[in-house]
Amino acid sequence: MDVFAFFNLNELAFGLSKLPMFPYFDMAHYIISVMSLREQPGALCVSQRSPLACWFSSMLYCFGGAVLSALMLADAPVAPLSNTTNLLLATLMWYLVFYCPLDVVYSLASLLPLRLVLTAMKEVTRTWKVLSGVSQAGSKYSDALFVMVAVGWAKGAGGGLISNFEQLVRGVWKPETNELLKMSYPTKVTLLGAVVFSLQQCRYLPIQTHHLTFIYTLFTVTNKTRMMLLGSSSHPLSSLESFLYK
Amino acid sequence: MDVFAFFNLNELAFGLSKLPMFPYFDMAHYIISVMSLREQPGALCVSQRSPLACWFSSMLYCFGGAVLSALMLADAPVAPLSNTTNLLLATLMWYLVFYCPLDVVYSLASLLPLRLVLTAMKEVTRTWKVLSGVSQAGSKYSDALFVMVAVGWAKGAGGGLISNFEQLVRGVWKPETNELLKMSYPTKVTLLGAVVFSLQQCRYLPIQTHHLTFIYTLFTVTNKTRMMLLGSSSHPLSSLESFLYK
Amino acid sequence: MDVFAFFNLNELAFGLSKLPMFPYFDMAHYIISVMSLREQPGALCVSQRSPLACWFSSMLYCFGGAVLSALMLADAPVAPLSNTTNLLLATLMWYLVFYCPLDVVYSLASLLPLRLVLTAMKEVTRTWKVLSGVSQAGSKYSDALFVMVAVGWAKGAGGGLISNFEQLVRGVWKPETNELLKMSYPTKVTLLGAVVFSLQQCRYLPIQTHHLTFIYTLFTVTNKTRMMLLGSSSHPLSSLESFLYK
Repeated sequence: MDVFAFFNLNELAFGLSKLPMFPYFDMAHYIISVMSLREQPGALCVSQRSPLACWFSSMLYCFGGAVLSALMLADAPVAPLSNTTNLLLATLMWYLVFYCPLDVVYSLASLLPLRLVLTAMKEVTRTWKVLSGVSQAGSKYSDALFVMVAVGWAKGAGGGLISNFEQLVRGVWKPETNELLKMSYPTKVTLLGAVVFSLQQCRYLPIQTHHLTFIYTLFTVTNKTRMMLLGSSSHPLSSLESFLYK
Repeated sequence: MDVFAFFNLNELAFGLSKLPMFPYFDMAHYIISVMSLREQPGALCVSQRSPLACWFSSMLYCFGGAVLSALMLADAPVAPLSNTTNLLLATLMWYLVFYCPLDVVYSLASLLPLRLVLTAMKEVTRTWKVLSGVSQAGSKYSDALFVMVAVGWAKGAGGGLISNFEQLVRGVWKPETNELLKMSYPTKVTLLGAVVFSLQQCRYLPIQTHHLTFIYTLFTVTNKTRMMLLGSSSHPLSSLESFLYK
Repeated sequence: MDVFAFFNLNELAFGLSKLPMFPYFDMAHYIISVMSLREQPGALCVSQRSPLACWFSSMLYCFGGAVLSALMLADAPVAPLSNTTNLLLATLMWYLVFYCPLDVVYSLASLLPLRLVLTAMKEVTRTWKVLSGVSQAGSKYSDALFVMVAVGWAKGAGGGLISNFEQLVRGVWKPETNELLKMSYPTKVTLLGAVVFSLQQCRYLPIQTHHLTFIYTLFTVTNKTRMMLLGSSSHPLSSLESFLYK
């Protein structure tokens, strides 16, 4: 892509695509995921009554995508538990967010500047998860575009897609809502990502993987940051939607 | 079987067993399945509010049996998505039934003569699905009669058996009803089919596969047609049941 | 372990670890499981209205652990159906408990002495199930402690852990309760067993398998017997819990 060469972004894009997620980005993902669980109505009460249900719910928030995509591809959904280091890291974050003395960790991480940075880092992990889901599906079903989209979407937005069953763990049941009936912003942007990455992997999009990674990551991070700073729920996809539903 | 030779039905039965389901019979299955989804209370409203949930629900109606039997045998439940041609065909039917301008397709297909033909063709696909489920299970667990019955039943009547979860996609939750508590006619006749095909595959029934295919298809098609023409819900199994429950 | 040598228990422990579960202990497990289903509110009514739903529910009580652990390890959840002998044994117990003329079997098995013996035998099968779950997980994910605990727990306490979905089969839906939110005694003691057996298999506990089998079985059997005789729900774990939650 000439634009990349023009702005000397080639090396930056390549460097980004080699960025290791472990441990800092993973940690940001875990802490933001557990914080969004804590902000659900009734979650704090569950954390006092039943730490085990609370922990299991947190793990579904952190590893929901891995569990859902494993189920879809007939891999063992228990596999995330076999990655002991990541599991302990997520458990540590769960403990700190819910039970830290004086609530120091949650209070600190809720401060806007810090939360902004952590959320941006979490958005970066989304790209990696979508891409890994797409390639995992591609290695099992080569050139099956729809399978790749489905698995990439499931891996990137798993926590949201299984939210009905995650809530059930906490004793909450809201059958009238789900992410398919009314998609939230993260689910939408992940679906978009799954579609473009699948098209790229099937060679329908003439662009290199690390360039696409760079563009998509830039898009999600700036978008999310802008939404948090402006406190608005409007995003570039909104205008597209209102056009489509016109 | 002498009866077959006597009536010169051997060739007819053999020809039927070689009938390809793709594309016409599959298409009839998809259109009738999507139409029965559309006739569920609230489905039209969902189709306006959230086309994605509506599409996913339709796919569960069309491919529910494949998904359920894959889950039961630890195959990938996402596999139906990898058959791009059938998926696009089902998606086309979904689009035409729900969103066709002036509602032409639904109105036409609802006319009794056309609906009768389409329903009869859908009944024919049932035989194929039950038989494929039974042989799939038989190739994994040879001579495990109960596994063969269960998988054949799941593949043939999947849409009904998972209806609780299909409804959940549309935001409907009716825990007090399910197909095990109160079986509908298609579920019953599929169970009967799964039992006889499993017995035949385990060589407990001294009959050839293509003869049984012929008899079972004849039975389901005439039965269903009769029920539609008379508008009655009584069927040959009813008398057996009232005898058993006496 | 010197204690074992001192009391001459070595041979007893070894003998116990070689005890075959089939058919007597399995039978006790099935009969007690089906009896506890029958004692659920509404179960008798379901057994009259829909024998099939009742049978399926009973099988989930009897084989729930095997189904859940198979799902977790991406094995076929339909596998318990392939063990025809055990399935027929469980079906026979289901028939006798629910439909025996004059209700002879249920009345007899409800007599305290007999129920005590059967329950003790059922507790013995728990050890075997936990241990088999732990080793199954260990052979797939060697040294993955958390996977081993999870699968061992699922296999030993499966019926309880999936109770929400087992109830759904009978048309009952109680989202506000589950075994993670409020663990029952069997679930707790199985979790304890899964932890100690996993630690032992990973060589963190310096004890031989047959010694641990002996100690754990002794613990569960005496505990359960004591609870039944005293009609109390307090158990050794209660004091530990009240200490932890202080």
